[in-house]
Amino acid sequence: MERIAIVGLGLIGGSLSLSLRRSRPQTRILGVDVDPRAREQALEAGAIDAGATLDDAALDTCDIVVLCTPAQPLLEMLPRVAERMKAGAILTDVCGAKERICEAGAKQRRVVFVGAHPMAGTEFRGFGAASATLFNGCTVAICAPATDERGATAQVKSMWTAAGAAKTLDVDPARHDRAVTFASHLPYLAAASVVDSLLAAGDAAALARDLAAGGFRDTTRLAGDGTVGGAAALNRFIPDEARALSQRLRALADEIERDPVRALERLGDLADERRRMRLPPVHRPS
Amino acid sequence: MERIAIVGLGLIGGSLSLSLRRSRPQTRILGVDVDPRAREQALEAGAIDAGATLDDAALDTCDIVVLCTPAQPLLEMLPRVAERMKAGAILTDVCGAKERICEAGAKQRRVVFVGAHPMAGTEFRGFGAASATLFNGCTVAICAPATDERGATAQVKSMWTAAGAAKTLDVDPARHDRAVTFASHLPYLAAASVVDSLLAAGDAAALARDLAAGGFRDTTRLAGDGTVGGAAALNRFIPDEARALSQRLRALADEIERDPVRALERLGDLADERRRMRLPPVHRPS
Repeated sequence: MERIAIVGLGLIGGSLSLSLRRSRPQTRILGVDVDPRAREQALEAGAIDAGATLDDAALDTCDIVVLCTPAQPLLEMLPRVAERMKAGAILTDVCGAKERICEAGAKQRRVVFVGAHPMAGTEFRGFGAASATLFNGCTVAICAPATDERGATAQVKSMWTAAGAAKTLDVDPARHDRAVTFASHLPYLAAASVVDSLLAAGDAAALARDLAAGGFRDTTRLAGDGTVGGAAALNRFIPDEARALSQRLRALADEIERDPVRALERLGDLADERRRMRLPPVHRPS
Repeated sequence: MERIAIVGLGLIGGSLSLSLRRSRPQTRILGVDVDPRAREQALEAGAIDAGATLDDAALDTCDIVVLCTPAQPLLEMLPRVAERMKAGAILTDVCGAKERICEAGAKQRRVVFVGAHPMAGTEFRGFGAASATLFNGCTVAICAPATDERGATAQVKSMWTAAGAAKTLDVDPARHDRAVTFASHLPYLAAASVVDSLLAAGDAAALARDLAAGGFRDTTRLAGDGTVGGAAALNRFIPDEARALSQRLRALADEIERDPVRALERLGDLADERRRMRLPPVHRPS
């Protein structure tokens, strides 16, 4: 019988356990979380077979351990978790920054580390927001180890397919981090800055909230997902690219002031490009 | 029998005609658009009783004329439309910037101009995207004229309530423009800049598109709505506030580089604030 430990029973870890429970009823799932309430919720939902803290979890009995905590603790616990697993087992993760995590994974030789990043999320957190359908149709980026004699990469891909992913995509960690800079981390930082602007708007803030329509809601949704920030902070491309985005916004402000007709043409072109992009459908929890 | 002319049969004008058709079947709706296809679509959908170009439309027979075109042409046509209406009739609009529009409205004395701005939209354009339920539950900002002996403001409010709005909010044009700076125009410019960054990402752009999850989709949705740009270009608060947003983003980038722990705390606080905001529900076309 396959045994999986899921470390971190938040939105991602909780959704992974719920979806694997449905698609792989034979797999035994050990749920690991510091928060007893998260473990209780997951047990009550039937998402896991047993709950434990990391110190109490029998990681040595598991075939696969999936790290689903926020980025910084994930990076820190990785070597310690690997050490406690059985030799040759599979360690994997869900972090949105892959270079530094995969470096840490490659440094140890006890287990096979396969980096993974499911491209899915909502602005809600915790097991309460988890859903068996969160990964339905999503893409999962996979960073395979340099040597993989036991087919660990194939097993991790198969797990994500079982969890609902439509596609897995092999990608080098640095290429991944540069691409998610544009796909996820810059959108997140822009959203957070827009929220910050509104909060700092003084007298105008209350009326701005009353007048906020769907545009504000959607533009800033990602700002509610604090975990993306952790990944952005581990992404070496971020400081420079965020400064470039800041410069782009400033140039746009100057152009609106100086030559609004040209600025509007450019914004119209961007609107057209945006509409032409094929983007994932809106997630509807089942 | 009440007669209304709706000038511009795009998303907003089209949705207004569809919703008034349902709630006020006795009202005769004249649909005005330069594009014959938009007029045909609106006629076929039963949204309007007759279609015409602006030059051909009998504006002098209408009790209310609603300007629903993009911002710049709206500002330009306003005096010309007012001139052709019957004295004392009601002229109103839907533009997302109110100071300059209301100034133009107050300059003429032939009709009563009531500024309005429904806080609703989607990234899709044109009559094809219009929906009878677009305004359901939304707030409409209303800028009443200095003198309003005939109760024009009440009639415009009543029209929006009939169109589905949950609330109308009296607001001074300058206060409106400053509030929508934060509620709508900065989110829009941030979204457009994020799209621009992705398009300029060179080698990383293709993979970034493949890895774009819901976060990118939602953050940039507003960038697909080119009409917000027109309103932003008429908003005198925009150049300075967009530069301030650019500066805020730059400071965040610097802090992530210099002191990631503090940056993450701050981002976590923003995430909490964002989740605490009461924002409008997601619009579902019926």
